[in-house]
Amino acid sequence: MLKIVTIGGGSSYTPELIEGFIKRYNELPVDEIWLVDCEDGKEKLNIVGNLAKRMVEKSGLPIKIYLTLNRREALKDANFVTTQMRVGLLDARIKDERIPLSHGVFGQETNGAGGMFKAFRTIPVILDIAKDIEELCPDAWLINFTNPAGMVTEAVNRYSNIKRVIGLCNVPFDMHTAIAKILARPKDDVQIFMGGLNHMSYVTKVILDGKNVTDFVISKWGNHSMNNITGTEWVNGFVKELGVLPSPYHRYYYMAKEVLEETIEKFNNNGTRAENVKRLEDELFSLYTDENLQEKPKQLEQRGGAYYSDAACNLISSIYNNKGDVQVVNTVNKGAMQEFEYDEVVEISSMITANGPVPITIGKMPKCTKGLLNQIKSFEIATCEAVISGDYNKALLAMMINPLVSSQKYAIKILDEMFEAHKKYLSTFNK
Amino acid sequence: MLKIVTIGGGSSYTPELIEGFIKRYNELPVDEIWLVDCEDGKEKLNIVGNLAKRMVEKSGLPIKIYLTLNRREALKDANFVTTQMRVGLLDARIKDERIPLSHGVFGQETNGAGGMFKAFRTIPVILDIAKDIEELCPDAWLINFTNPAGMVTEAVNRYSNIKRVIGLCNVPFDMHTAIAKILARPKDDVQIFMGGLNHMSYVTKVILDGKNVTDFVISKWGNHSMNNITGTEWVNGFVKELGVLPSPYHRYYYMAKEVLEETIEKFNNNGTRAENVKRLEDELFSLYTDENLQEKPKQLEQRGGAYYSDAACNLISSIYNNKGDVQVVNTVNKGAMQEFEYDEVVEISSMITANGPVPITIGKMPKCTKGLLNQIKSFEIATCEAVISGDYNKALLAMMINPLVSSQKYAIKILDEMFEAHKKYLSTFNK
Amino acid sequence: MLKIVTIGGGSSYTPELIEGFIKRYNELPVDEIWLVDCEDGKEKLNIVGNLAKRMVEKSGLPIKIYLTLNRREALKDANFVTTQMRVGLLDARIKDERIPLSHGVFGQETNGAGGMFKAFRTIPVILDIAKDIEELCPDAWLINFTNPAGMVTEAVNRYSNIKRVIGLCNVPFDMHTAIAKILARPKDDVQIFMGGLNHMSYVTKVILDGKNVTDFVISKWGNHSMNNITGTEWVNGFVKELGVLPSPYHRYYYMAKEVLEETIEKFNNNGTRAENVKRLEDELFSLYTDENLQEKPKQLEQRGGAYYSDAACNLISSIYNNKGDVQVVNTVNKGAMQEFEYDEVVEISSMITANGPVPITIGKMPKCTKGLLNQIKSFEIATCEAVISGDYNKALLAMMINPLVSSQKYAIKILDEMFEAHKKYLSTFNK
Amino acid sequence: MLKIVTIGGGSSYTPELIEGFIKRYNELPVDEIWLVDCEDGKEKLNIVGNLAKRMVEKSGLPIKIYLTLNRREALKDANFVTTQMRVGLLDARIKDERIPLSHGVFGQETNGAGGMFKAFRTIPVILDIAKDIEELCPDAWLINFTNPAGMVTEAVNRYSNIKRVIGLCNVPFDMHTAIAKILARPKDDVQIFMGGLNHMSYVTKVILDGKNVTDFVISKWGNHSMNNITGTEWVNGFVKELGVLPSPYHRYYYMAKEVLEETIEKFNNNGTRAENVKRLEDELFSLYTDENLQEKPKQLEQRGGAYYSDAACNLISSIYNNKGDVQVVNTVNKGAMQEFEYDEVVEISSMITANGPVPITIGKMPKCTKGLLNQIKSFEIATCEAVISGDYNKALLAMMINPLVSSQKYAIKILDEMFEAHKKYLSTFNK
Repeated sequence: MLKIVTIGGGSSYTPELIEGFIKRYNELPVDEIWLVDCEDGKEKLNIVGNLAKRMVEKSGLPIKIYLTLNRREALKDANFVTTQMRVGLLDARIKDERIPLSHGVFGQETNGAGGMFKAFRTIPVILDIAKDIEELCPDAWLINFTNPAGMVTEAVNRYSNIKRVIGLCNVPFDMHTAIAKILARPKDDVQIFMGGLNHMSYVTKVILDGKNVTDFVISKWGNHSMNNITGTEWVNGFVKELGVLPSPYHRYYYMAKEVLEETIEKFNNNGTRAENVKRLEDELFSLYTDENLQEKPKQLEQRGGAYYSDAACNLISSIYNNKGDVQVVNTVNKGAMQEFEYDEVVEISSMITANGPVPITIGKMPKCTKGLLNQIKSFEIATCEAVISGDYNKALLAMMINPLVSSQKYAIKILDEMFEAHKKYLSTFNK
Repeated sequence: MLKIVTIGGGSSYTPELIEGFIKRYNELPVDEIWLVDCEDGKEKLNIVGNLAKRMVEKSGLPIKIYLTLNRREALKDANFVTTQMRVGLLDARIKDERIPLSHGVFGQETNGAGGMFKAFRTIPVILDIAKDIEELCPDAWLINFTNPAGMVTEAVNRYSNIKRVIGLCNVPFDMHTAIAKILARPKDDVQIFMGGLNHMSYVTKVILDGKNVTDFVISKWGNHSMNNITGTEWVNGFVKELGVLPSPYHRYYYMAKEVLEETIEKFNNNGTRAENVKRLEDELFSLYTDENLQEKPKQLEQRGGAYYSDAACNLISSIYNNKGDVQVVNTVNKGAMQEFEYDEVVEISSMITANGPVPITIGKMPKCTKGLLNQIKSFEIATCEAVISGDYNKALLAMMINPLVSSQKYAIKILDEMFEAHKKYLSTFNK
Repeated sequence: MLKIVTIGGGSSYTPELIEGFIKRYNELPVDEIWLVDCEDGKEKLNIVGNLAKRMVEKSGLPIKIYLTLNRREALKDANFVTTQMRVGLLDARIKDERIPLSHGVFGQETNGAGGMFKAFRTIPVILDIAKDIEELCPDAWLINFTNPAGMVTEAVNRYSNIKRVIGLCNVPFDMHTAIAKILARPKDDVQIFMGGLNHMSYVTKVILDGKNVTDFVISKWGNHSMNNITGTEWVNGFVKELGVLPSPYHRYYYMAKEVLEETIEKFNNNGTRAENVKRLEDELFSLYTDENLQEKPKQLEQRGGAYYSDAACNLISSIYNNKGDVQVVNTVNKGAMQEFEYDEVVEISSMITANGPVPITIGKMPKCTKGLLNQIKSFEIATCEAVISGDYNKALLAMMINPLVSSQKYAIKILDEMFEAHKKYLSTFNK
Repeated sequence: MLKIVTIGGGSSYTPELIEGFIKRYNELPVDEIWLVDCEDGKEKLNIVGNLAKRMVEKSGLPIKIYLTLNRREALKDANFVTTQMRVGLLDARIKDERIPLSHGVFGQETNGAGGMFKAFRTIPVILDIAKDIEELCPDAWLINFTNPAGMVTEAVNRYSNIKRVIGLCNVPFDMHTAIAKILARPKDDVQIFMGGLNHMSYVTKVILDGKNVTDFVISKWGNHSMNNITGTEWVNGFVKELGVLPSPYHRYYYMAKEVLEETIEKFNNNGTRAENVKRLEDELFSLYTDENLQEKPKQLEQRGGAYYSDAACNLISSIYNNKGDVQVVNTVNKGAMQEFEYDEVVEISSMITANGPVPITIGKMPKCTKGLLNQIKSFEIATCEAVISGDYNKALLAMMINPLVSSQKYAIKILDEMFEAHKKYLSTFNK
């Protein structure tokens, strides 16, 4: 019996995931997929769950789809639990972006002020899930896509009793694809070594046919971007000196001023990205309700999370089949990156086995990346500590040390408004 | 024979130094003070040098003052060499501040874009001095006050053959004074432990009468400032969570947005701080020319460098007398701070002996400071590497990783204008 | 064209290697095998080389075997170079064991006094080979079986310009086999994690069907041994507290006194192990001369090096095919083991790719192993430094810090006699 | 009120301590000295206590001496507590040496098998004392001379709630004296830097008149010894390569074989050192009973612990007076030695302040010392864990990893006999 549980099953991404399981049925013979959501997500769960059922039906495979609001029933004896919930729904994300931007500060739903509050809302929920897993399916792997994936994984590792947790992001997958395109070769021919933190990891080495071709890829890297991040190109001399490939998210640090200018301009003209995503989601759900639809609609790919399905299904299949292939995941460092403490969660190339990911040695990072990486890690940990303790001062510290904020005055203003806006979801802070 | 050589002897600070030597003559019986300057500084050297002679004359002590443009003659058999020169004079500093600010970016003459170019101008000169010391007075101690003191000391340690170099700054001295004031006790009763980097060091512990009173001092720290840095107060909850005392310069990082707003406002209204300093210096020199003046004028204390004299003379006296007391200096880490590499220059509480400073263990820094400290250290090292190699890309990297810049677009603009403005002093980049 | 060069091709082990290439021809289609030896080994080269030719002939495969004394001709455009030479032949090994034992001290041809002199004889030769490789086949992989494999690999990594060097030993292979036997499962089902130094590595984790079964294997480990090391059983309480599986060679440290007693007794009764090996080799070569023999004779397995062939051919095949499987090799640490410096050679579980081995993180070693591991590593490095510098004092240091010697008085006596006995091969020390 | 409590006050060393306090009364105006002992030590306490009273009386100082068996009464409001007790008296030490030696293994009352059992007997007692201190005099400094001082201090630091503990040994004091003699200068003119573990620390640097004279002292080091350790001289080439000065105790490691031979010969001829010490003590106590004796008798200096008094009184005075001078003590590493963990107790040059010792950076140790240092530290920790847990297997591990034992067979035999011999004092193991 191979049982998958997807928490936040009502997400617009679910059809991707279903498609992924269908495609890989030969190597990953899933028996049951349980889509779980909460009361607020009931309607979406029904819409997307019925599409999932139609997709499976079309495939002719013996996969059973269950829809439920009863998380504990779903978790019983699960093998893999994926989490893709959004506490507070897109309305909360709109506030995460809108409030900071109204003060001229990045919202940024992962490493920014917005991400901090997303973590505040999500971490208590994921720790509850971890407790249920410990009780109901202690051998299951918790595979978390929920952003901020780095902080959420760190929190589970630090504050729960389960150790079988892996954080997953599509950025490494996307960078791998982009590099293969530069080399004009199939992705499977290209090995990448990657390390850092979620939304803050670098490609440190690219191997093609047994040769190190990193310098060549660096020399072509200038114009890589992702479709949810502003597209300013890297000046090649910078990437060359950096010595590793920055991800699209590094623009928030090395190009902070111009990205902020562009973001504020867009915000003034079109509102937040969250609002655009909401419009896109509304469209998707109106497509999903079409009872004739039996496959993932093309439009889904315009969401930032393209490739999530592939990344997630690949990871699950490699664990299930003890493949020993290398994937980039968020897991405990264990010395692989000497820039971080032994017990900290990092995003790193890891060998995926039936016993979980084993980070491989990627060598020392360039000197100039160590400071930024540690600053973000300490922001992640301070955020975790703030939500666990419910201590306002820790939240203030987390925000002030965040290089996307860098202000005492605005940190205080944003905190005040955000705590008010999200108070329904921040019970740890109410004590 | 105890011989002191002061390079940049025409500086407006020199009377402070002379006063310091006069005051300490009992424990530090200086025979000769050689004030050295370059052709451009000849006039100022004469003015300030004559004041120095009048000050010594008034004291009745057998100290001889020499004024010279011949550095090598001065260095012969020196015991201590202090460096306080300003390559390009205040005009260069005005450009260091004005150009970045015109793009909405901090100039900041130490850790900012301005400081980077000040390092570019100064490092080749200090390395020449180091070569002369190696040849002419190999047992001498080089005591550097020239900003950016951290980078300059790092460069001497990394790229010269002399090991007897110490960087000195008045910020630790000033913080010690401020803490003693909070405790309402004489400074000698209060021990502080300090660690970090130049203009980036924190007080980690305060001991009074054998008791750790750090928490008490933290609870009173809110309103400490220095007279050359904007005075926004720290919110106490932040300092409490930080767990160590930030220096006035930390405002550039934890309060970057508001300090930038204020700096730009001042710049628009009154020009740069460098321009104000220039006005102040003009006033000082017009005082110094008064042949009746036989002491340091009160107005000198309005310059940012108050206490430099005390810091410098204390350091020299402790080396000379093998005192073994604790002072905060810029020296090689040697494992005292595990946040930094073994060989990196740090600003740290050190026992001062006849064989030089020995850093003492100050323990682990708070997690949340490690990232910022490393980011600045990598900026310092990238700056050193850029000026040594003369490689534009390394300069671009240094600027883009600097959290006071955080922009590719403006980094390029500022670099272009700065290289043009300072080209006379940047010969390593012309190759 | 896939070309393999085996230096020390006249070794009695060569038939194993040939058998290994024949067995794996489907995945590793070797075109040419060049067996190289020196003038002293000419006769053995002819005997074993002709057996190799008969073995290939019998297989019907298009592999060409070349026998030569011209190393440079052989190396031209090689893909893989294996080294299994014995400088000074078995006669030298007899002295390596006999001289120390005559003073009541372990000879021990790897980590003992004997191994030190074996390293002294071998390292200059391997560095010459490395120079030839750099010139004649710079993309080739040097796969070293020559003992002491740890030191030899360390020396190549430290003092040559080639980076494609891997040290290989059959102990990990043997331990994997023993563990699989304990679990009563095929070896391929059992994953082991191993780390340490050559002849000093521990199994840190055993995974079966995705579960950690290390504690179970530890509870059964008492009676494991290898056929060339004395068989005293481990007391289970010790292995349990150690927390990792010791290798047979660890008896030299944790059971030093009794192993020494047994070794001296055997020495008194039967001479050194080297003398027994010599007798065995004479028998093997008399078998090899039989022109009807077309396969590896069974007797070869009584030599200590059983499984070398499998280990070597597996490694070469994984590199050739970019397999990405995990093997235990001697390679640069790169942070995988925090007990060692970043650049030191360790014996560690590594993912084997076309670009070479990538160590995987095995986590922290038990506290109590760190000291011994570092002591042996420093012995290895001191030995390398001694032979490179030709400095007697460094040789004395290396011997005195070796826990198998632990004596100043006997170190000096042994050094004196060994330098005399081996002087023909120790030209670096004659200067 | 300055109150000193000496636990184990009936020790034959006590007159040294009393003399030390008398000599330093000007700077250390002790009001009360409480000599505490247990029922078994009552008679010795009376004899030595009365001598102490006569010594004070002769001095004419207003110091009060109290003799008591009531430890808790004594501890009330103490400022300094010194511990010099010997659990099981000298009879236990005789067994500590005799049993291992009867199996051809070092007894060695600190780092050997004997020291392990001395730790087993002492640690439970010192932890009880620590609990009393926590309750009765929480600001007091616990200054431990009881051997094995390294392990005892480690245990207090690890398993008690008091942090004001310092371990003290006379070896550093003695080495300082020996170095001053080599330099033919008063001790105060010579600065030494020292680091390692108790009975395992090295002098890393010697400074005279501000110059590094380490190489000169190394070149003269050959014949240094202490009067309780066998006197074989170091070969100078070894010390030169080592690069630091070994202590007399390092003979147990670098000259293990010859020291063992000599020790066994002595044992066969004269019995153990403990038995000689016992004879010496009997003589001392017969002197002490002489009511005319009012000073420390000369014969006391023949005991191994000469200089303990000076070391102890200097330490207490530096804390009391916040001197900030450098002394070598056993205290928490805090990063001063990168060879050890942050929290481990090391023996290191430290600045002595009213807030306790602050280790100074002594730089990296020579590579070749790291292994041995870590092996001993892990032995110390394993010993602590064994006595705390009462787990036989941990005791077996501790003994087998000890380089002075290096045997499974003899470890088991010695353990069996020692547990039987000392069972009265090993209650933690009886559970």
